[in-house]
Amino acid sequence: MAGNQVHNEGKNVVMKQWFHDVLMSKMRSVPGKIWGTVWKVGRDDPRRVIHSLKVGMSLTLVSLLYLMEPLFDGIGQNAIWAVMTVVVVLEFTAGATLCKGLNRGFGTLCAGSLAFFIEYIAEESGKASQAVFIGVAVFLIGSGATYMRFFPSIKKNYDYGVVIFLLTFNLITVSSYRVHNVLRIAHQRFYTIVIGCGICLLMSLLIFPNWSGGELHNSTVYKIEGLARSIEACVTEYFQDHDIHDEDNSGEDPIYKGYKAVLDSKSVDETLALHASWEPRHSRHCYKYPWQQYVKLGGVLRHFGYTAIALHGCVQSQIQTPRSVRTLFKKPCSRVAEEVSKVLVELADSIRNRRHCSPGLLSDNLQDALQDLNNAIKSQPRLFLGSNRNQATNMLAVAAAAANQKDPSGGRVSLSSVKTDSSALLEWRSKRVADHSECKVLRPTLSMLAITSLEFFEALPFAAFASLLVEMVVRLDLIIEQVEELGRIANFKEFDDNIEIVVARRSSQREIEPHLGSQNID
Amino acid sequence: MAGNQVHNEGKNVVMKQWFHDVLMSKMRSVPGKIWGTVWKVGRDDPRRVIHSLKVGMSLTLVSLLYLMEPLFDGIGQNAIWAVMTVVVVLEFTAGATLCKGLNRGFGTLCAGSLAFFIEYIAEESGKASQAVFIGVAVFLIGSGATYMRFFPSIKKNYDYGVVIFLLTFNLITVSSYRVHNVLRIAHQRFYTIVIGCGICLLMSLLIFPNWSGGELHNSTVYKIEGLARSIEACVTEYFQDHDIHDEDNSGEDPIYKGYKAVLDSKSVDETLALHASWEPRHSRHCYKYPWQQYVKLGGVLRHFGYTAIALHGCVQSQIQTPRSVRTLFKKPCSRVAEEVSKVLVELADSIRNRRHCSPGLLSDNLQDALQDLNNAIKSQPRLFLGSNRNQATNMLAVAAAAANQKDPSGGRVSLSSVKTDSSALLEWRSKRVADHSECKVLRPTLSMLAITSLEFFEALPFAAFASLLVEMVVRLDLIIEQVEELGRIANFKEFDDNIEIVVARRSSQREIEPHLGSQNID
Repeated sequence: MAGNQVHNEGKNVVMKQWFHDVLMSKMRSVPGKIWGTVWKVGRDDPRRVIHSLKVGMSLTLVSLLYLMEPLFDGIGQNAIWAVMTVVVVLEFTAGATLCKGLNRGFGTLCAGSLAFFIEYIAEESGKASQAVFIGVAVFLIGSGATYMRFFPSIKKNYDYGVVIFLLTFNLITVSSYRVHNVLRIAHQRFYTIVIGCGICLLMSLLIFPNWSGGELHNSTVYKIEGLARSIEACVTEYFQDHDIHDEDNSGEDPIYKGYKAVLDSKSVDETLALHASWEPRHSRHCYKYPWQQYVKLGGVLRHFGYTAIALHGCVQSQIQTPRSVRTLFKKPCSRVAEEVSKVLVELADSIRNRRHCSPGLLSDNLQDALQDLNNAIKSQPRLFLGSNRNQATNMLAVAAAAANQKDPSGGRVSLSSVKTDSSALLEWRSKRVADHSECKVLRPTLSMLAITSLEFFEALPFAAFASLLVEMVVRLDLIIEQVEELGRIANFKEFDDNIEIVVARRSSQREIEPHLGSQNID
Repeated sequence: MAGNQVHNEGKNVVMKQWFHDVLMSKMRSVPGKIWGTVWKVGRDDPRRVIHSLKVGMSLTLVSLLYLMEPLFDGIGQNAIWAVMTVVVVLEFTAGATLCKGLNRGFGTLCAGSLAFFIEYIAEESGKASQAVFIGVAVFLIGSGATYMRFFPSIKKNYDYGVVIFLLTFNLITVSSYRVHNVLRIAHQRFYTIVIGCGICLLMSLLIFPNWSGGELHNSTVYKIEGLARSIEACVTEYFQDHDIHDEDNSGEDPIYKGYKAVLDSKSVDETLALHASWEPRHSRHCYKYPWQQYVKLGGVLRHFGYTAIALHGCVQSQIQTPRSVRTLFKKPCSRVAEEVSKVLVELADSIRNRRHCSPGLLSDNLQDALQDLNNAIKSQPRLFLGSNRNQATNMLAVAAAAANQKDPSGGRVSLSSVKTDSSALLEWRSKRVADHSECKVLRPTLSMLAITSLEFFEALPFAAFASLLVEMVVRLDLIIEQVEELGRIANFKEFDDNIEIVVARRSSQREIEPHLGSQNID
């Protein structure tokens, strides 16, 4: 008994110790996690740290209006409006700050004028009818201004201005009922807002400015480079030896990572272009810049990206041409992809360096690569031959023959690999069905199983892959066109052969880094 | 001379008359245009009119706080904060209003508490050191809060709250330097904000509420139906008799119109789901609703949409399998598309009516349709046969033979149509090059011209088209899976055979209308 008790007590002590350890380690890990987030946010884009410090500094500066005696005497209690303006207006990029600041200024000005007009009319009448008049005016202007916010053109550029208009109008009109020196309030409000906006503009334009235009420029370059990487990765993975269905977690996938930035870029691009159009020309590179052309280029890139997704779909698809057949076309396909990717990298470089793109690079090699692919397919005519009886056997025969040619040890390897392909597919399906066991009743005849029993799909997937590669070359033409158009409108430098060689050498060695935080801007 | 003068004068009168007419018609057309915009915005979504009136009414209500004697005596000058709150917080949907209102409330509360703590410390010291202390606090809190806004989790849910926190904190801290009853200011500010938020919530929750959740639900149904229409239109256009390159203005294109809503839906979906998660359950249909599941479904739909784009790309592509060859596969392809589209419509109906989807409809016919396509392709084995010498001739022979079978008047028609195809392509290219004459020098060897000289592409485009159709069937499986998952989590009604027949009949007759204004909401 005593021994038992001792044992139990020992157990309790161990339990407590364990509990204590777990709890403490959990407690200790919380600050670690927070610190990890803090560190990551700053490391991903160090400009965020700078921006935060800028906001802190602006707020302190504007607070001096209130804290320092001589300044306060000049402005008075309303200095608080300047503080509010800084909090609301100072944005990450210079363009966004300008857009908001000017909207705020104009909105206040318009509202002030209108409010005076209303007050002028209202003052003529008695107190009671003045209240009614003010109420009606507030209702009408409130409804009207809100309705205007739905107009696409106003929503796009002046949404914030209308909100501020409404705010100021209500403030002045309603105040005018009780306060009699409304003119002074309105003046002060306007002055303090101008002071606040002024501090914001100084901060965002002069101290470590982040230009929306630069952001748009860089993100365009980054997107084109991403597409280039994506296509190369796609073709590499398609002809890879090991099983491609390992990497279903598309978050880590280099292909997905490449085209991801392009896909949902529409709203970000448009916001950046809108803000960029408010920015003054800020460097010697910047002529009157055609930001809308970047948006157009972005649209073409997105369409190119959709082809990249379709290509990725071919890679991920469960229905595949046997690997041994695919291998026959590895070289020409890789070459086409390489050339497409090379052209994209050249285009990205040309935009980055603001020069026209090299005239030679763009088509000679690409044409050769396409010709190669053509020859490769023509040299395997039986591949696309099917008969009613045994098309599959035909394809396997080709595969086996090809494997025999390349691998003197016999056709066994390639044949077994073909078998593995389809059995792996069946395994995958049954696992998938088991996962959702209640769906089983609902879909006894899964369309996937139906597909796998059809032979013709064995030849089609590769045809689709090749066709998409070719489609990609066609769409590449559209990208080139838009980049040239951009170069023409934006007065890019002429192409210089000497620089080109250096750039080409550098760009082939360089590790491409993402320098974009634009998702977090608008 | 005199005659000449008379003539000139007559001319002048005519000119003046003409000028007058043009100017007047211009002047007259401006109000017409404005009225057109006003009318269109309201007709597109009548809820906008209601929302505008709601805002006007709320503003009038909140102004009464200031205008009516008894209310004003209770609240005082600070009633103006309530007006500001209404202007800023009242949003189009109930979810967005709730999200903003609660953020504003919590932000104010937190900032108030912190400001008091700071003030408590600051008051201990002298006037000068108090100013320094306030300045430092403003800088630190300002930088810190701004930096926090970059954290993804805070940015997503509490961005507005942090802004309001910063605003209130600065307001109170800075004011505390000069005003001594800061506690009263803070209280009043908090109360008036609560009153403002209360009016906003009443208005948005009780009077003609627009639910973000409903919006998300409807937009999902609408998107699925759009995809269904898009696919049918795609296949119809692919096998159309007249020249498909007429309709390059993709704004009018029914295919593009169908999948357009899906493409850039990511941010809209996420915003709606976020706002919906703030909304209370508002109808008997609404169990604890899994809004995130809608976002997941939206992702799968987007991926399906990318395949639709690739299919559209096949239709628009300049490189085409001759029309006479394509025609051979018209029936089976159309059937597959029809079945896919039917399944999508059934899924849309099941979501719309909040019931599980019909178990039978989902795969039997689809499998048959796939088998048909398989048989059709197997019955034309020579189509995919190429030889080094004359693959093109082979394909034309097949086409001619097919045309002979169907059209007893001879093979001439199909052969000439094949010729027209490639000559039209060449025409198109040369026109395109002429448009951008300065590009000519830069790209003498256009990749497109290279492509047209390769014969193997004549067979590939159709293979790609068929393969994409099949790929679509596979992705359809994923959509079905997500919809079933949605039905399970959201406790959809069981499927009822009797209802089903009625619904199927109705949905086959009904004109599908867009009932979405969601692009304009976030």
